[in-house]
Amino acid sequence: MIINGPNINLLGLREPHLYGTDNIEDVKRLCDSVAEELGLQIEFHQSNHEGEIVDLIQRARTEADGIVINPAGYTSTSIAILDTLLAAELPVVEVHVTNIHRREQFRQHSYVSHAASAVVMGAGIQGYEFALRRLATLTAA
Amino acid sequence: MIINGPNINLLGLREPHLYGTDNIEDVKRLCDSVAEELGLQIEFHQSNHEGEIVDLIQRARTEADGIVINPAGYTSTSIAILDTLLAAELPVVEVHVTNIHRREQFRQHSYVSHAASAVVMGAGIQGYEFALRRLATLTAA
Amino acid sequence: MIINGPNINLLGLREPHLYGTDNIEDVKRLCDSVAEELGLQIEFHQSNHEGEIVDLIQRARTEADGIVINPAGYTSTSIAILDTLLAAELPVVEVHVTNIHRREQFRQHSYVSHAASAVVMGAGIQGYEFALRRLATLTAA
Amino acid sequence: MIINGPNINLLGLREPHLYGTDNIEDVKRLCDSVAEELGLQIEFHQSNHEGEIVDLIQRARTEADGIVINPAGYTSTSIAILDTLLAAELPVVEVHVTNIHRREQFRQHSYVSHAASAVVMGAGIQGYEFALRRLATLTAA
Amino acid sequence: MIINGPNINLLGLREPHLYGTDNIEDVKRLCDSVAEELGLQIEFHQSNHEGEIVDLIQRARTEADGIVINPAGYTSTSIAILDTLLAAELPVVEVHVTNIHRREQFRQHSYVSHAASAVVMGAGIQGYEFALRRLATLTAA
Amino acid sequence: MIINGPNINLLGLREPHLYGTDNIEDVKRLCDSVAEELGLQIEFHQSNHEGEIVDLIQRARTEADGIVINPAGYTSTSIAILDTLLAAELPVVEVHVTNIHRREQFRQHSYVSHAASAVVMGAGIQGYEFALRRLATLTAA
Amino acid sequence: MIINGPNINLLGLREPHLYGTDNIEDVKRLCDSVAEELGLQIEFHQSNHEGEIVDLIQRARTEADGIVINPAGYTSTSIAILDTLLAAELPVVEVHVTNIHRREQFRQHSYVSHAASAVVMGAGIQGYEFALRRLATLTAA
Amino acid sequence: MIINGPNINLLGLREPHLYGTDNIEDVKRLCDSVAEELGLQIEFHQSNHEGEIVDLIQRARTEADGIVINPAGYTSTSIAILDTLLAAELPVVEVHVTNIHRREQFRQHSYVSHAASAVVMGAGIQGYEFALRRLATLTAA
Amino acid sequence: MIINGPNINLLGLREPHLYGTDNIEDVKRLCDSVAEELGLQIEFHQSNHEGEIVDLIQRARTEADGIVINPAGYTSTSIAILDTLLAAELPVVEVHVTNIHRREQFRQHSYVSHAASAVVMGAGIQGYEFALRRLATLTAA
Amino acid sequence: MIINGPNINLLGLREPHLYGTDNIEDVKRLCDSVAEELGLQIEFHQSNHEGEIVDLIQRARTEADGIVINPAGYTSTSIAILDTLLAAELPVVEVHVTNIHRREQFRQHSYVSHAASAVVMGAGIQGYEFALRRLATLTAA
Amino acid sequence: MIINGPNINLLGLREPHLYGTDNIEDVKRLCDSVAEELGLQIEFHQSNHEGEIVDLIQRARTEADGIVINPAGYTSTSIAILDTLLAAELPVVEVHVTNIHRREQFRQHSYVSHAASAVVMGAGIQGYEFALRRLATLTAA
Amino acid sequence: MIINGPNINLLGLREPHLYGTDNIEDVKRLCDSVAEELGLQIEFHQSNHEGEIVDLIQRARTEADGIVINPAGYTSTSIAILDTLLAAELPVVEVHVTNIHRREQFRQHSYVSHAASAVVMGAGIQGYEFALRRLATLTAA
Repeated sequence: MIINGPNINLLGLREPHLYGTDNIEDVKRLCDSVAEELGLQIEFHQSNHEGEIVDLIQRARTEADGIVINPAGYTSTSIAILDTLLAAELPVVEVHVTNIHRREQFRQHSYVSHAASAVVMGAGIQGYEFALRRLATLTAA
Repeated sequence: MIINGPNINLLGLREPHLYGTDNIEDVKRLCDSVAEELGLQIEFHQSNHEGEIVDLIQRARTEADGIVINPAGYTSTSIAILDTLLAAELPVVEVHVTNIHRREQFRQHSYVSHAASAVVMGAGIQGYEFALRRLATLTAA
Repeated sequence: MIINGPNINLLGLREPHLYGTDNIEDVKRLCDSVAEELGLQIEFHQSNHEGEIVDLIQRARTEADGIVINPAGYTSTSIAILDTLLAAELPVVEVHVTNIHRREQFRQHSYVSHAASAVVMGAGIQGYEFALRRLATLTAA
Repeated sequence: MIINGPNINLLGLREPHLYGTDNIEDVKRLCDSVAEELGLQIEFHQSNHEGEIVDLIQRARTEADGIVINPAGYTSTSIAILDTLLAAELPVVEVHVTNIHRREQFRQHSYVSHAASAVVMGAGIQGYEFALRRLATLTAA
Repeated sequence: MIINGPNINLLGLREPHLYGTDNIEDVKRLCDSVAEELGLQIEFHQSNHEGEIVDLIQRARTEADGIVINPAGYTSTSIAILDTLLAAELPVVEVHVTNIHRREQFRQHSYVSHAASAVVMGAGIQGYEFALRRLATLTAA
Repeated sequence: MIINGPNINLLGLREPHLYGTDNIEDVKRLCDSVAEELGLQIEFHQSNHEGEIVDLIQRARTEADGIVINPAGYTSTSIAILDTLLAAELPVVEVHVTNIHRREQFRQHSYVSHAASAVVMGAGIQGYEFALRRLATLTAA
Repeated sequence: MIINGPNINLLGLREPHLYGTDNIEDVKRLCDSVAEELGLQIEFHQSNHEGEIVDLIQRARTEADGIVINPAGYTSTSIAILDTLLAAELPVVEVHVTNIHRREQFRQHSYVSHAASAVVMGAGIQGYEFALRRLATLTAA
Repeated sequence: MIINGPNINLLGLREPHLYGTDNIEDVKRLCDSVAEELGLQIEFHQSNHEGEIVDLIQRARTEADGIVINPAGYTSTSIAILDTLLAAELPVVEVHVTNIHRREQFRQHSYVSHAASAVVMGAGIQGYEFALRRLATLTAA
Repeated sequence: MIINGPNINLLGLREPHLYGTDNIEDVKRLCDSVAEELGLQIEFHQSNHEGEIVDLIQRARTEADGIVINPAGYTSTSIAILDTLLAAELPVVEVHVTNIHRREQFRQHSYVSHAASAVVMGAGIQGYEFALRRLATLTAA
Repeated sequence: MIINGPNINLLGLREPHLYGTDNIEDVKRLCDSVAEELGLQIEFHQSNHEGEIVDLIQRARTEADGIVINPAGYTSTSIAILDTLLAAELPVVEVHVTNIHRREQFRQHSYVSHAASAVVMGAGIQGYEFALRRLATLTAA
Repeated sequence: MIINGPNINLLGLREPHLYGTDNIEDVKRLCDSVAEELGLQIEFHQSNHEGEIVDLIQRARTEADGIVINPAGYTSTSIAILDTLLAAELPVVEVHVTNIHRREQFRQHSYVSHAASAVVMGAGIQGYEFALRRLATLTAA
Repeated sequence: MIINGPNINLLGLREPHLYGTDNIEDVKRLCDSVAEELGLQIEFHQSNHEGEIVDLIQRARTEADGIVINPAGYTSTSIAILDTLLAAELPVVEVHVTNIHRREQFRQHSYVSHAASAVVMGAGIQGYEFALRRLATLTAA
């Protein structure tokens, strides 16, 4: 399951100097194509609602083998999402389109990282490819 | 009104070394039985959505005599829930299944406590019993 | 677009020593009258849900010329709302009914201010009037 | 063993808006009556001396099955008491008559909590009842 | 009484990308015209000297009905000005031409805000208009 | 009641560059003579034990009209002593032989000051004279 | 030389619950009478200007034998005053009418204390008497 | 150029629960094979010496098109390495075998990240593959 | 004089994975035997009371040539013990059975170290041997 | 324009172990002689008043080509001086007679440095020579 | 293996009031003699280079049974040395000639201590003797 | 002896907006010419290795009369360099090409400054001239 947080639906439409020009459809297409190559089945979601993301992870807990998550605006503020990831007991790979270590101080801490086995940031939408490849390795192990 | 925050619906299903093996049905049954003993009428809710919890407390404000709340993942992050509890002007008892003082640093602060007259933590689901008993004392006063 | 955060629907009903006795209907009437004077068309919203506020700002992004926002309980905790305001690339005026600098320490930081060109606080519901007037100036420029 | 820290002997005599009007005799009577109901034998102590509290816990270590402790003024300052509780390797329930989370910053940290399985605060002297009930559950397990 | 702190006399002459192109004469003209509309009598002052600002506020204490103050460079450093405003026991509205929340960290704290009932920042010189309007409301109450 | 904390019995014997050459007998003599001049009856105590100091203050609570305290080594560490002083509800004057603001950082905070109406530091043993005079003024009021 | 900082000229006129009802004339009369008793010649000053206070201390450096200073609003902010006191190389006694340790956090640090041999706070205007007595002792030594 | 910091030569030999069982030869083989697939020429280095790593980056500055760096023990302590990466003005991808966000606090800050366009952590030695792929994308752009 | 703080009497009885299996009798025997070898006369004490430890050090001040102290639970909290050690003006060696630098953050600061010429930690009870040997060297010098 | 802050007029008269024995006349003579060598016209000022320094910089803004400033006691406390220097938009060289990095912590931060292109400290009055030489280089560029 | 960090080769030559008059040859002789008594074979090294120290520890990892290290100037700054010690999985005893707890704040934290079983500081060069004795005990166990 | 830290060999080649266009050869030529004017003999070094810089300072200790050091990337991280400068007991002047007070927070602290009598920063390569002139003054004294 691939879960995208708030405003990822605006990718490519806003602040392209930060986020690039690929939009969420491009991300989805990339994920589909990588998943096909790796023989994975994926579900792709985006939500602006913290509660919905919690609901999605709860569903992943019983229906999926791993989670790729770009928590976006909830990265540094949501203990609820962290708790649900911990409860899911699945391999988690965290993706950020930008390198959050080079942005404002308040973006540099990630609660989600406490539950993620791997983190990829600053690799643009290619980060999703890496995340899926890592997940394939982990679930194959 | 008894309000449970995110992931309480997974109680008993996840991380039993932390949260024990009782599930949310057990909590509800316990609350029903204690309420019956104390002659209280209760409503029992669980939500993963911060906004829904705000809505519930707003409803409690006019329809209930007190609130038992386990804010779970929103304990340390939700000023919105704190504000609504303050606006409700009802007796509030805060419950945590685990002793949050023994967990990670970032879980040890509770905004909800600013509005709670009493806090019970680490007593497992028995904490709900104590919270209801305390509420009975407070509303009887 | 005028967006009000959690518990603004209780304005005038709770803690009048802090928030005064005007209620949300009074705020709306005031905004309507000022908007009419200034020749602005306004939409007026209130929501207790962080995700809904994100959705509203995303809609404003393509449909409105500016945003007046009273983020209330999400002022100091929501990076998601900040990100959406930044993505909207519209003039934003932030309003608080009370002077948050004179309240608890944890209320004194505002993420929203990073995206707001102007902030009015402590002017009661008159702050909405000033915000609309400022927005009119900004969008006329 | 029930251990009360400094100034608990003044309960009911000082600052009743904070601590209520029940005095230490009322606490003792309540504990006796709850203990009788639960079939527990209790010893009830109060001391203003940190060293005496350490001595008491050391004695409890070999003579008691559990400890209820209201560390009062030593809550945030005594690592010695914490160490002794850890050394005792008994179930510990910590009680505070007031909700220390709503008081001054320097009262909000509790060393004792690192050794307590449960904490009850803000429930007045009823907190002792809950503590004994919890201890009964723990020692029965 | 309208009091302007250090360097406000350079408004419009320095760093126009921050402070705009209106100068202090424009501010005075705007204040005069708003005051006339509102039926207020105003005195307009600017000083680079902390002590003179203290003297002015002390005079306002007995001769004026309210204070509009732009403390500029003394915003975050002058407890003396704060104390005098508190001693004046008059309604105070604080104005900043820029949104200080978006500038350097050391500018984000305002001692003056502890004494101000309302704060307007980032509205350019229009902030003075809002401040006078708010003062009129407050002194009319 | 005049209460001296740990090591005040060594006054004049240790580190005279810090504490001067007057010893505790000189302090007592000075207090006796000032008390006689002011028509006060005094009790003079010194203890190295935090618990004993708590006991003394508890006794002062019912038997004395005011407290002069030099908390010495317990100044910055004892919340128990602070609580007892608050519970005593008597005028309290705090004395330090040295100016603690000029010593190590960890000595500069005083819990006792939260309960003291006046503080005299750095005036050597003359500080006791001032403390008694102040107490006389306060109890006469 | 006795130096009073900003707003001491308003003593007795503002916030009497904090500062009492004695005014600056009462302080001056008290100082005159104590000085006469002690055989001291005094100069008594009050200024709202940091620079004037620096000038005064520079003059005291060559013309006086000691300084009593109530730095008021400049207590926590003026390194310039501290430096001048250090340069004066005279005995300094610092006076505060209130106990600054019981007020807001930002008032609790005093730069002046780094240069003062003694500090008296919270003793009302009687603090000036104690300060003069201490100065007499110091200059007699 | 691929640069490995201190102790990467011990990979697979120490603490396998943290770092896995692949050794530095496996890393090199993986890099060679990925480079071949991508048509990149690579140099592979490991050094325990901060100064040597600075020298290597200086050489890369004129001889390479990009840098993959695992700064290991110098991640949080070397401003010298950061400065050299900034001076090199090449695309940089930072790799960590473990997720440093889940380790000790002092490992969670990376100076190197200030100069890295992308960061991959916690993906084991597969992180090197992702880093090379990202570098290929960046240098192709 | 050898002084042991709170719970050292439980050494060997509690948490052997931290403190080893030697008990306080073993410590005493070791000290006796080392003292005999070095020709030293020793007194060996253990107390759970901070005040008693202060009393002991005061006695050592006039009766002993040096102090070995294991302050245990008072290490990070007792300024009173620090002050008494400073007043004693004797060589002091501080011993900790465990390496406190590898334990919880709150145990890593030692007030006692400000007065100790040497510190030995993590050497188990052998640390007492080293401390006595060091003291012999210091008092021989 | 050369601007000296508070107490520079006492240079050579106070604390010579810190500030040396050269007085302000020596500084002026040195500046005159260096200026003559460099063909610069200088104005030399000293003031104990923050506001006067602001006034001087405002005058320099239109009348001078550069500023040498020794802000002395206003170094770490005056945002007003910083703002005026920024508004002046002239080359600024900051001088300190002592190395402020080796003095108390509170002297180590300089607001003025945010506006200075160069800083010279610890070179005694020779620092003024270097500052003038640097200014000559800058204004010649 | 005995490893000495930067400037230990200057021991006895610099700042004797801090480090005593014994030089590195004396340290080596002492170590040789203690090692002979204990039947240990030792290698004795000193290096000013962090990387060389890392190399030495890596060699010790396969060739030695334990490490005595005086990390000197790298104590508080080298995570690389810490990591290598952790990787070595050998008993480590850390030695400091002075008591670093009594020196500047920035010297009081030791990364090395996270990997050391024992720490001896302030015992002069005798600390090396204690370290070797402790190592003998540990390797004999 | 003139010692330059890491990346100074790239001066003029990298980030000219920060460091200017003069290269290290220009620095050397400038130093040679100033030294000749002042009659000084100089050695000029640059190293990227912290250990080599320590070695150089150790050599300067016996062979030179003073040190000019631009510690560059080791400014804020090397206690080893600080210790060696302290051990050298020579006059030290610290040079930075840029004004480090205007750069990132982590560059604003300098360990080297604790050992430097003077610091020149932001004067470009002219800072080396000032440093040599100051050294000439100091060694002539």
